[in-house]
Amino acid sequence: MSATSSWGTNIKLSIFGESHGPAIGAVLDGLPAGVPLCMEDIEAQMARRAPGRDKSSTPRKEADTPRFASGVLDNHTTGAPLCILIENTNTRSQDYANLALVPRPGHADYTAFLRYGGHNDVRGGGHFSGRLTACLCAAGAVCRQILLQRGVHIGGHVLSVGSSFDEAFPEVEIPSSLLDRLSREYFPVIRPDAETQMRAVIEEARMARNSVGGTVEIAVSGFPAGIGGPLFGGVEPVLSSILFGIPAVKGIEFGAGFQVAKARGSENNDPFYYQDGQVRTKTNHAGGILGGITTGMPLLFRLALKPTSSISLTQESINLSTQSNEALEVHGRHDPCIVPRAVPVAEAAAAVALLDLLLTAGDQRTL
Amino acid sequence: MSATSSWGTNIKLSIFGESHGPAIGAVLDGLPAGVPLCMEDIEAQMARRAPGRDKSSTPRKEADTPRFASGVLDNHTTGAPLCILIENTNTRSQDYANLALVPRPGHADYTAFLRYGGHNDVRGGGHFSGRLTACLCAAGAVCRQILLQRGVHIGGHVLSVGSSFDEAFPEVEIPSSLLDRLSREYFPVIRPDAETQMRAVIEEARMARNSVGGTVEIAVSGFPAGIGGPLFGGVEPVLSSILFGIPAVKGIEFGAGFQVAKARGSENNDPFYYQDGQVRTKTNHAGGILGGITTGMPLLFRLALKPTSSISLTQESINLSTQSNEALEVHGRHDPCIVPRAVPVAEAAAAVALLDLLLTAGDQRTL
Amino acid sequence: MSATSSWGTNIKLSIFGESHGPAIGAVLDGLPAGVPLCMEDIEAQMARRAPGRDKSSTPRKEADTPRFASGVLDNHTTGAPLCILIENTNTRSQDYANLALVPRPGHADYTAFLRYGGHNDVRGGGHFSGRLTACLCAAGAVCRQILLQRGVHIGGHVLSVGSSFDEAFPEVEIPSSLLDRLSREYFPVIRPDAETQMRAVIEEARMARNSVGGTVEIAVSGFPAGIGGPLFGGVEPVLSSILFGIPAVKGIEFGAGFQVAKARGSENNDPFYYQDGQVRTKTNHAGGILGGITTGMPLLFRLALKPTSSISLTQESINLSTQSNEALEVHGRHDPCIVPRAVPVAEAAAAVALLDLLLTAGDQRTL
Amino acid sequence: MSATSSWGTNIKLSIFGESHGPAIGAVLDGLPAGVPLCMEDIEAQMARRAPGRDKSSTPRKEADTPRFASGVLDNHTTGAPLCILIENTNTRSQDYANLALVPRPGHADYTAFLRYGGHNDVRGGGHFSGRLTACLCAAGAVCRQILLQRGVHIGGHVLSVGSSFDEAFPEVEIPSSLLDRLSREYFPVIRPDAETQMRAVIEEARMARNSVGGTVEIAVSGFPAGIGGPLFGGVEPVLSSILFGIPAVKGIEFGAGFQVAKARGSENNDPFYYQDGQVRTKTNHAGGILGGITTGMPLLFRLALKPTSSISLTQESINLSTQSNEALEVHGRHDPCIVPRAVPVAEAAAAVALLDLLLTAGDQRTL
Repeated sequence: MSATSSWGTNIKLSIFGESHGPAIGAVLDGLPAGVPLCMEDIEAQMARRAPGRDKSSTPRKEADTPRFASGVLDNHTTGAPLCILIENTNTRSQDYANLALVPRPGHADYTAFLRYGGHNDVRGGGHFSGRLTACLCAAGAVCRQILLQRGVHIGGHVLSVGSSFDEAFPEVEIPSSLLDRLSREYFPVIRPDAETQMRAVIEEARMARNSVGGTVEIAVSGFPAGIGGPLFGGVEPVLSSILFGIPAVKGIEFGAGFQVAKARGSENNDPFYYQDGQVRTKTNHAGGILGGITTGMPLLFRLALKPTSSISLTQESINLSTQSNEALEVHGRHDPCIVPRAVPVAEAAAAVALLDLLLTAGDQRTL
Repeated sequence: MSATSSWGTNIKLSIFGESHGPAIGAVLDGLPAGVPLCMEDIEAQMARRAPGRDKSSTPRKEADTPRFASGVLDNHTTGAPLCILIENTNTRSQDYANLALVPRPGHADYTAFLRYGGHNDVRGGGHFSGRLTACLCAAGAVCRQILLQRGVHIGGHVLSVGSSFDEAFPEVEIPSSLLDRLSREYFPVIRPDAETQMRAVIEEARMARNSVGGTVEIAVSGFPAGIGGPLFGGVEPVLSSILFGIPAVKGIEFGAGFQVAKARGSENNDPFYYQDGQVRTKTNHAGGILGGITTGMPLLFRLALKPTSSISLTQESINLSTQSNEALEVHGRHDPCIVPRAVPVAEAAAAVALLDLLLTAGDQRTL
Repeated sequence: MSATSSWGTNIKLSIFGESHGPAIGAVLDGLPAGVPLCMEDIEAQMARRAPGRDKSSTPRKEADTPRFASGVLDNHTTGAPLCILIENTNTRSQDYANLALVPRPGHADYTAFLRYGGHNDVRGGGHFSGRLTACLCAAGAVCRQILLQRGVHIGGHVLSVGSSFDEAFPEVEIPSSLLDRLSREYFPVIRPDAETQMRAVIEEARMARNSVGGTVEIAVSGFPAGIGGPLFGGVEPVLSSILFGIPAVKGIEFGAGFQVAKARGSENNDPFYYQDGQVRTKTNHAGGILGGITTGMPLLFRLALKPTSSISLTQESINLSTQSNEALEVHGRHDPCIVPRAVPVAEAAAAVALLDLLLTAGDQRTL
Repeated sequence: MSATSSWGTNIKLSIFGESHGPAIGAVLDGLPAGVPLCMEDIEAQMARRAPGRDKSSTPRKEADTPRFASGVLDNHTTGAPLCILIENTNTRSQDYANLALVPRPGHADYTAFLRYGGHNDVRGGGHFSGRLTACLCAAGAVCRQILLQRGVHIGGHVLSVGSSFDEAFPEVEIPSSLLDRLSREYFPVIRPDAETQMRAVIEEARMARNSVGGTVEIAVSGFPAGIGGPLFGGVEPVLSSILFGIPAVKGIEFGAGFQVAKARGSENNDPFYYQDGQVRTKTNHAGGILGGITTGMPLLFRLALKPTSSISLTQESINLSTQSNEALEVHGRHDPCIVPRAVPVAEAAAAVALLDLLLTAGDQRTL
């Protein structure tokens, strides 16, 4: 039915696995050789994405310990394809038969049924499971280390949960220290009290057996100017082609994004000026990208994430075998809000895309 | 420097040309053979995008008459790569030397200078010119005919200009007749009086020697269910990888888009139900896409377009040779709002992507 | 450094692993869903390639037992990327330090040193090891089953070892039973006594602490007509792009191959004729391919394999640290002839390419 | 039916056109910017491939004058996709209807009929015509100039016509002057008297209303060491994926090629040694490639070209409408041997592939 889980030009990322299959993982082909990797950091990034971080976190974290099957020797990349394996230890066989027949609203159950003729592994969402983002997180953790060693800092935060907002990134001057701090946190926010308010919104949704969506904002500093290109090789098309691969993402905007639609040219154009011989712009509505090419100003983009589709409330659905309408109750504990966990995943996806853009621009010799 | 103007998997689109070079054009490789093409319709779609449609339209329309250099015989596709050529007749040699040194804010002048080391053709924006979208428009016009013959209707409208809004598409039931009507108009809107208000907003911006942005909404009906895939082969990543290639697009959202960030799961999930044996959803916040795969409901997405970067107002910029700040005045007539002209371009880009998705899903044998 | 171990258009094959790393494997993305797989057959194909088949075969065969990490459920493909894992159990840590400094003639030691700056895993050849062909063998075993279920038979034989030749495939009429028989054998030959003679040549080389090369001939019957295309989408370019990826292959020819260079048009052109309403050719010098597209006649091609580079004889080499010439003695048991083991690998590579060509031609819906 | 005429990773080559359509051409996307181009040299390369070079050459040469529609300004590359257009002036409308029904043996008439359902342009072979190689020749002429400016010399010669042989390239020491001389000639041979003998063989075939095949040998000097990679990113797979796209090529071998099959390891392995601090090999059976990566020794490969399929002799064929056997007489003047004209085409294809390999290896910044 054609490849869908492979991505890239000079870096090829291939993600495999199913939620309740033997293992999940990723292959990263095209990495530079001889790059030192900090394994703790990779596990730390995966821990940020892992579910149940609070009391019951241990078992699941074990499940998510990555194993490097190839491409790494003595904690350095060998240049051969790097394969990260994550065993699925925590997959007690539940009865998912029902899910196959009564698709969950908002999930891929029905569309996967159409595409794979009912042959796909439906347990836990199979290859459509959010769990697959653990592979993206691990692969991105490798790429972001390579970028960080070259002065590229990637950090994101929960910009909003429902209608509770954090402060947005400053547009033109983003301290690397802020990005580094955010990129280590479980619930990254800029304004300290934002987390409390957002957690309240999430708790409220949970108590209502419901879920809530939100937005993630990512910033990148230190990325070289002049990378990308016109039309389809631009930073926006390349980044969006991987970011929209993250389940639940329904919108992406760069810089001022949808705000540009209301602006006038005189407001939206970013004036150029020299500062200590460096070309900069006084504002950064472009999000660091003009004509698909980086300006040298911080890259800025935002993602809209839909509320978790799995909710405990009874929902209207259908029965594909009886071809009749049928109410559905989804049991089990569900994440009432996946936005905080989506931050490291979005950072990771961006890292893969930015490294590919850099390699495509010919920096691998200087890498 | 790597290819940036090529796109696609089973269909390969290659766009070439510079605003003031000899010619611009597109190559479409991978089209099914034996498809009848209506040349008038292709020119009509290009006319929708062409500048100066009012009094002075003739000369420019001539300039934009496409010539089919290959792939078409007796108005049918031959299966060989289809090449569309558009001569640049209207390129009197102006002095653009200044632009090369004093980059226009909001334009790719500066970033192109970085990427191409000052070797790119700066006249009229060169390969970064919005004029290149004429090639996309022509290529898309070919693809949309192939889709239309299979019952796929693509139509869009100007959803907003500044803060003046048209009515949005109905979510679940979009008459093909509406899409067909919109896809023939120069200033497509759903609510008749919306055009007048929007034109007022545009005129106001023009009088202020300024420009204004807006949003475009596209809908697709009749596209088969079960097309696309998980992760990077999904409809959102594939569509966005071509749509973000359109200059001025800074945001893309599917279905409810950024609204999902404020919604709860119970509100956002689209309930399934059977209607005359057909699976449908009562709402369509997913924009016809679940897990990257089409549900069979209408596809819906919106693009945010920034205000035209070229404005007559004096702007702050820099001089790359003297490396000092310098005010810039851009002369000549400029489009105060490119949003109406962006509608056929976005429809065209979507047509190319949807045909590729269809071919990738294996429909070419049934095409 | 750019991806080198990924291949394909609608099927994406990604091979990973290093000879002495934790594991090797392959990811096959884009397979049709619901295809039944016979695991014994896959292991049988891998056994054909495995070293030391005679007495000491067991331990190594265990080492090469594939594990399906994803994409398979109840012995059927799920449509998700299929990942095959092979653990490297048999990798006692030898001292390969010397190899890193004194490159083995005919091996990739020196060129890998250049490309990876000495960071690649040199143990056992690392990612360049012939052992990686086990992954290709496994991936191809999956694809050939899918093809076989559609009546496509792939079989090959050792056409020559040194100057000892087997009989060539009949050009126009190749019984599927012959292909099936060959595709199960360890030392596949058409003429029964050929094996004895070839083994003698190999034994002679072994006794001389040397190695010997040979040729492999592959035939495919039942592959549909009309698959492939002109220029770079042709069967020859697509097949060769994967077959030349097999280490030791230095030449590929289709049909009459290099013999065409001596022929006249009247001899080389294959006359068309009708047989029971079927279009056939009286000869098949084209190897079943005209204009890059299959004719419906059997596909025929041959590969030239160089003698194993590892020989016990003392060889002239260099020392990259002292930058002086230095004699080299390679110890350990070496395969004096890899040609028989290359047959299943070449069949497997062909299976992957042919399935991709078939999917690209749009057969996945009929698959 | 999926793209077949597009090639490349960091350079994207897209070839379009039909023999008797309005025009043919090529788009090269991904070239470095600011490279000076000598247009006379490009026309000279195309003249080497052009038919009827003797008396009647003028009209056809005019027909093959390339026009640069984009990507070139003041004889320098701009970095935008470079489009080369060749108008088809010499296409008087003949009656090819018969060819559509009675396929020419050895041609793609029948397979194209299958693939395109009879919708392809059959006049002069349409997109399958050898004339399309003019585009490859022009595109390659651009790439070879870029390579030459970096010290990479590409040259080829007619190694054999029928059983008349030229002297082969010296294996380890190939003077650039020889390659440059050959790359300017219409009938390039190393041994002066070889041409006379070969022309006699060709003339003999012509008198017999027949045609004859031959081999082409290409050498490349000055190409950097360390370029390429293992498995599918190797120099052999990449070069063959474009070279096998040249019509009439049925075999490709690198270095000793099929001779390795008869050799022993001790004979075939190329001993390393230092010469003035440079790593070299005493022999070059590897053709300058080990493990898919360049060694720094000259690249050497040979192509087998079949005799021209078009011959005046009556041939056996079929009638696709009456579905009965039918004799065929192909009229018109035909090239009794395309081998000499294939040399510049093969050099050109190699140039495109080698530049892509170089860019993929990250040299574009140093280019």
